[in-house]
Amino acid sequence: MVTTTELSHTHFSSIMAKPIPRNKSSSIFLSDGFLFLGGAFSALVLVWGFSSFTNPIPNTHKNNAVSYSTPDLRFDPPDQTFYDDPEMEYTMTTKIDDWDEKREEWLKHHPSFSAGAKDRVLMVTGSQPSPCKNPIGDNLLLRFFKNKVDYCRIHGYDIFYNNALLHPKMFAYWAKYPVVKAAMMAHPEAEWIWWVDSDALFTDMDFKLPLKRYKDHNLVVHGWPHLIHEKRSWTGLNAGVFLIRNCQWSLDFMEAWAGMGPQSPDYEEWGKTLRSTFKDKFFPESDDQTGLAYLIAIEKEKWADRIYLEGEYYFEGYWEEIVETFSNISKKYEDIEKDEPKLRRRHAEKVSEAYGVIREEYLKDAGYGKGSWRRPFVTHFTGCQPCSGKYNEMYSADACWNGMKKALNFADNQIMRKFGFVHKDLGDNGVSSLPFDYPQV
Amino acid sequence: MVTTTELSHTHFSSIMAKPIPRNKSSSIFLSDGFLFLGGAFSALVLVWGFSSFTNPIPNTHKNNAVSYSTPDLRFDPPDQTFYDDPEMEYTMTTKIDDWDEKREEWLKHHPSFSAGAKDRVLMVTGSQPSPCKNPIGDNLLLRFFKNKVDYCRIHGYDIFYNNALLHPKMFAYWAKYPVVKAAMMAHPEAEWIWWVDSDALFTDMDFKLPLKRYKDHNLVVHGWPHLIHEKRSWTGLNAGVFLIRNCQWSLDFMEAWAGMGPQSPDYEEWGKTLRSTFKDKFFPESDDQTGLAYLIAIEKEKWADRIYLEGEYYFEGYWEEIVETFSNISKKYEDIEKDEPKLRRRHAEKVSEAYGVIREEYLKDAGYGKGSWRRPFVTHFTGCQPCSGKYNEMYSADACWNGMKKALNFADNQIMRKFGFVHKDLGDNGVSSLPFDYPQV
Repeated sequence: MVTTTELSHTHFSSIMAKPIPRNKSSSIFLSDGFLFLGGAFSALVLVWGFSSFTNPIPNTHKNNAVSYSTPDLRFDPPDQTFYDDPEMEYTMTTKIDDWDEKREEWLKHHPSFSAGAKDRVLMVTGSQPSPCKNPIGDNLLLRFFKNKVDYCRIHGYDIFYNNALLHPKMFAYWAKYPVVKAAMMAHPEAEWIWWVDSDALFTDMDFKLPLKRYKDHNLVVHGWPHLIHEKRSWTGLNAGVFLIRNCQWSLDFMEAWAGMGPQSPDYEEWGKTLRSTFKDKFFPESDDQTGLAYLIAIEKEKWADRIYLEGEYYFEGYWEEIVETFSNISKKYEDIEKDEPKLRRRHAEKVSEAYGVIREEYLKDAGYGKGSWRRPFVTHFTGCQPCSGKYNEMYSADACWNGMKKALNFADNQIMRKFGFVHKDLGDNGVSSLPFDYPQV
Repeated sequence: MVTTTELSHTHFSSIMAKPIPRNKSSSIFLSDGFLFLGGAFSALVLVWGFSSFTNPIPNTHKNNAVSYSTPDLRFDPPDQTFYDDPEMEYTMTTKIDDWDEKREEWLKHHPSFSAGAKDRVLMVTGSQPSPCKNPIGDNLLLRFFKNKVDYCRIHGYDIFYNNALLHPKMFAYWAKYPVVKAAMMAHPEAEWIWWVDSDALFTDMDFKLPLKRYKDHNLVVHGWPHLIHEKRSWTGLNAGVFLIRNCQWSLDFMEAWAGMGPQSPDYEEWGKTLRSTFKDKFFPESDDQTGLAYLIAIEKEKWADRIYLEGEYYFEGYWEEIVETFSNISKKYEDIEKDEPKLRRRHAEKVSEAYGVIREEYLKDAGYGKGSWRRPFVTHFTGCQPCSGKYNEMYSADACWNGMKKALNFADNQIMRKFGFVHKDLGDNGVSSLPFDYPQV
């Protein structure tokens, strides 16, 4: 939007003429012209001056951010959208066409949601409806959910927790896809759906998704191309955390992806195909992770260019290599704060992002991912199965549950700090209050 | 902020003069003046016309809502606020002074949060850190938490789930108060802190707090004045759900209120005083609910005028009288929808409030609270103790757990509807997909 100041300057420079003193010997026409222009010039200077007074030039102390209008939750105009089409289905049974155009149309009719739409993220997660068999399972799921809600509150994202089985045959890890599909339809204002497994948590509350990095992609998972295309390993990527764009390509892709699930007549065949293509897959059933790897490797021309295999930071981090690093990382971050008063400054929880930006300056040598001393973005307790309790035999129960407790408290420390408290011992749920100017001695 | 159009009109009317044709017989001075003014006028018409073109007059189909700027999460200026005062404490040990002025100062330095500040609500809830003794306890807490997150997502509220014991001696129901205090300090942008117990859930997803009603009050609880002042019943109000204003009065009040807790040297004495004042209180320990009733009844002049005993709707509803009404209420609402196509219209979850407004027109005869057929706002499973499992003997276990399941599914139906699903049987966690134009036959 062109401001008054900008407008005035445009006219100012185009209309202004060098004033010439009126002289009886000049032609009447010329002097009339200059009078006219002089009047125009004076009026514009007045307008510009007045508007500068009412819209003072911002000083560096003021809020420089682009300000969007807040979404209007009470406005749904009668203009027809895809919601009024009887053909639209929330389920995976049929797939909508022209979804990109339909989303755009909805946004057009809901202008208060347009601003910020390009980066709007809806987090989606969930678990089974019935109580966990593991006696501590639901307590862990509750804490993992709280962690996600904390992250979303800091960054202004919406979050949806699902605990209904939307398709009777799409159980276990397949249950995600009907939820993601329904969420896309129910949330046209969201550009991205971010599925995060119930056993994954945020261990860096500052870090934000580098969405510009994914501007030409529609699906992001943690993974490494060579492990998929060359080594053909089923763990060359992880499907427990993915960012999927709310667009037609994603609906088409999910049709193929979820089409390998238990509801499909080809389910058993897929199990065999996936296992023969990815030789390290050790269980016979078709699973979504190997399915994704297959689509990237084998249907490469069709899909791969829009799928980002993110291996440069812990978009999803393997817990077993992470848990042991928490105390060293905590020490590093504490040392940074001891040297930088700005990072010790107390502040409203809602402006935490400002401090994330400051902290980032001090993390330039931290690195990312494995071997770094940066807080891992997401820690995923793959193989621990907190709900069923049937953890992978390669782990001990203690490693899983104690690891989870440490990770949850490591993350919670970053939140409780804003409320004036800390877990001094990551293995202990107890907290202590923090003195002013912590951690300065 | 004065707009370009408004500014231009101001100048337009003050500067414009009726153009007079130039005439050799007019004095040179007058005709020069008119030429000058004519130039001024023309310039302003140009500027006004250009700005109208770039800022078209909104048509009636457009979003008429007041648009606030979105809070800027990345902006925390260096201007000193209460956060920079070493005396400020998040704990209940010391109490801040001039909190109203300090909050206002913070808002002044964070203008993007000012808009909407008067009605901004932070929901706070929580439970113990350790797993529940009741095998299904944490599963229930997880579902109750999801319910609150759903309500907040629809209405744009932030929510904070606490599961740390902030004061080692303030256990059980007393644990709330340090959390509320810390939340007030951590969230100066919030006008209200809305504490909702872990065993209370939202059973009307449309209903919004009538905040205007409470403009002269600082604390709202469900209760009835005669039961407090005359009958002196400890259940004359319920402290499991309260709305408390983020202000100095509230800090002062909480100091008195929480001062009756286990951390106080007067704790035992308070137990005796409360029990002798409220004769139907049957357990000896000082509790926060009777404590609140005491402060309203006995320290009436000091506090009562700012405490709203809300008895006109289910600000907090007693589950035992509510659960049996769910199927009748569901039928009533379904009948309304069968007659009103607007209410059958599918829509984005984020614009649900628009449909709440439409629905309200049809609820004019529904009534409120007990005996009404309006969806109860909040249903509270007092006495069921989902976490410990030690439910009050006057109930049966089945009544509690089955009641909770029904309530959770009754509420979830209002959410799942936006995702295209419904629990047909409230006692069953299973869902079915909904056809277009449901519930029209």
